[in-house]
Amino acid sequence: MAKNMIIGQSGGPTAVINSSLYGAVKQALKRNDKIDKVYGMVNGVEGLKDGNYIDLTALADTTELELLRTTPGAYLGSCRFKLPESLEDEVYPLLFKRFEELNIGYFFYIGGNDSMDSVSKLSRYAEQINSDVRFIGIPKTVDNDLVNTDHTPGFGSAAKYVATVVREISIDASVYDNKTSVTIVEIMGRHAGWLTAASALARRELGDNPVLIYLPEAAFDQDAFVEKVKEALKTTSNLVICISEGINDGKGTFICELGSAVSTDAFGHKMLAGSGKYLENLLKDKLGIKVRSIELNVPQRCASAHLSETDVREAAGAGAYGVNAALEGETGKMIAFRRESDTPYVITYGVEDVNLICNEEKGVPADWIINDGSDVSEEFISYAKPLVQGDVVIPKDEGLPMFAYRK
Amino acid sequence: MAKNMIIGQSGGPTAVINSSLYGAVKQALKRNDKIDKVYGMVNGVEGLKDGNYIDLTALADTTELELLRTTPGAYLGSCRFKLPESLEDEVYPLLFKRFEELNIGYFFYIGGNDSMDSVSKLSRYAEQINSDVRFIGIPKTVDNDLVNTDHTPGFGSAAKYVATVVREISIDASVYDNKTSVTIVEIMGRHAGWLTAASALARRELGDNPVLIYLPEAAFDQDAFVEKVKEALKTTSNLVICISEGINDGKGTFICELGSAVSTDAFGHKMLAGSGKYLENLLKDKLGIKVRSIELNVPQRCASAHLSETDVREAAGAGAYGVNAALEGETGKMIAFRRESDTPYVITYGVEDVNLICNEEKGVPADWIINDGSDVSEEFISYAKPLVQGDVVIPKDEGLPMFAYRK
Repeated sequence: MAKNMIIGQSGGPTAVINSSLYGAVKQALKRNDKIDKVYGMVNGVEGLKDGNYIDLTALADTTELELLRTTPGAYLGSCRFKLPESLEDEVYPLLFKRFEELNIGYFFYIGGNDSMDSVSKLSRYAEQINSDVRFIGIPKTVDNDLVNTDHTPGFGSAAKYVATVVREISIDASVYDNKTSVTIVEIMGRHAGWLTAASALARRELGDNPVLIYLPEAAFDQDAFVEKVKEALKTTSNLVICISEGINDGKGTFICELGSAVSTDAFGHKMLAGSGKYLENLLKDKLGIKVRSIELNVPQRCASAHLSETDVREAAGAGAYGVNAALEGETGKMIAFRRESDTPYVITYGVEDVNLICNEEKGVPADWIINDGSDVSEEFISYAKPLVQGDVVIPKDEGLPMFAYRK
Repeated sequence: MAKNMIIGQSGGPTAVINSSLYGAVKQALKRNDKIDKVYGMVNGVEGLKDGNYIDLTALADTTELELLRTTPGAYLGSCRFKLPESLEDEVYPLLFKRFEELNIGYFFYIGGNDSMDSVSKLSRYAEQINSDVRFIGIPKTVDNDLVNTDHTPGFGSAAKYVATVVREISIDASVYDNKTSVTIVEIMGRHAGWLTAASALARRELGDNPVLIYLPEAAFDQDAFVEKVKEALKTTSNLVICISEGINDGKGTFICELGSAVSTDAFGHKMLAGSGKYLENLLKDKLGIKVRSIELNVPQRCASAHLSETDVREAAGAGAYGVNAALEGETGKMIAFRRESDTPYVITYGVEDVNLICNEEKGVPADWIINDGSDVSEEFISYAKPLVQGDVVIPKDEGLPMFAYRK
């Protein structure tokens, strides 16, 4: 007898987290031999706990569903709710009561590390109480830091955004090319530098901007940095430097914390200036030259204009594959990608044990970080390039993108 | 006998300042009955003064020239060089000596207010010495603050960027829609609020984000602002507010100066936090809620992904029209647009006296600013909407935009 499914989104949104939702819903609607209704948790398990869900079955054959494929943000609403470590907590029977009420057979959660932690706990609790609800994680994160998968949906589009915008900023930075200047671009990534590394794709040839790239995986030394900048300015008068927001001294102190330690705002609060602003001030102080810093900020994860077709396709594919995997009996698994080849780019889908993923974090490999931590290697370029390929046409209305909005 | 022409770019770049260069060069190459060689000043008059120029004639029928149409930044290099007030200064004979050496008959300068000031001074000096070199200004500015023209090339694409990205940020801001939050978006425009006003286009319906919009043309009152935010939060739990970087108290003090007055960075320098950061801290302090601020920064003026087809077409058109105007004998003029109709959108090209333009600044009309300075009117929407219409396909190479680079 057909069961119902429920799907949710959790953690920070990406440009393609809704593509995965689209892929899963679309596939579920096709598999109506096995799946009856398709429910969506509103604000993830936090919302579901409070009985907040909607029926997505009605999206079948609507324009809304097609728009969802290219809508940034989290259509269902997200949450930062961490399920308790103890499976004895009262939230578990509460959630499973909801599953029972809704006749849920399949549970899908689109998210990063913390969301995989939820899938892990729920699947372990299900085993404990002999529930037959199946739990599948569908990966998303612009940070690309999930282990046991070649890469993560959301990264490709964010990487394409970063590479494109850094290329454009480099052009903007060079308009006064008879003067010396430094532009520091601060890129998302507290612990993993994948997205910052993607700025290397902005280069057209060797020696192009961004000349220097700093990731959180390598210890950041301020003096060495100043020397590198001096050196680079000898050949590049309008220097562009890309840094991860999370660059740190390798001993646990973020560079941005050095600034905030002594700054207060107009209200007497500690001023949380970013790493870019801190380095801007450092270079002005040490070199007395024109320096500006630019924080790429949330457009990195919500820009529809820089969607990678590869990323959208794979994100939707992960959703669809997840539905099939659940129907085939999988539970406590995350959908993962394996790279068979760079050129031609070939990946295969598979499932991985979510318990081995949820508490790990994958950084950029040490041997892909070169030049005393100021650049990334060709291996990274070969890895990242296929992920930004292909453009996506966004439906427009009066010159602006049309998106899907939950009613 | 055919003369040569020279063209330059000056001031901050826009996404379409090269479209105007493209339009002018393309038209000049067509008019080879009258125009022999096409020179480009490198870094504007500052470069020309030092003998820095290139021959653009060779661009005829190249891919490079076609790429120029959609390349951000200033292909020729820009400058912030202000010609001296006194026409007795030695720079004038120096520049006119260059014109003579290069057999220049036509001079084109693509820029904003300051560039029009250069065109004014050079054309007045030419009159004084009976030179027959003709001087034409081709307008560009994302700020849209030039008088005697309906609007300025560069504004449409920047407005499209702002409207699109604010719509996407509003989606990103609403993913935790079971919690209260405020997102402040800081938009370019020190004195004129046109670009900030364009954020109103992000709304799909009445009451949509951005709910509050603040321009520099209206005096900003902090207490009234806090009250407006409280009121807005009653109906919009994830509030998005757009502000011009130049919002001020109406008495000459920028809001961002209030913050910097008491903040110092790690090096003991005054911390120049933006208006957005200041208001973020103000709201956190007064309301104790989650607030973030986002500075849209230079992508506003160099994003190729948000080019307005209307803007690119008109920017190229202004360049071509400028060449024709010069050939017809005009000098000391700026190319201007007159709007014949909003719907259908019809503009005509014309010339305006550059002397009446160069020292003026056009702000958003007072009666287009409504709700105690917290919104813009329907008149603004009708004015701005046609300017963001149409998309432009950017040539791509391996997933990233291809641009023209000066050799």
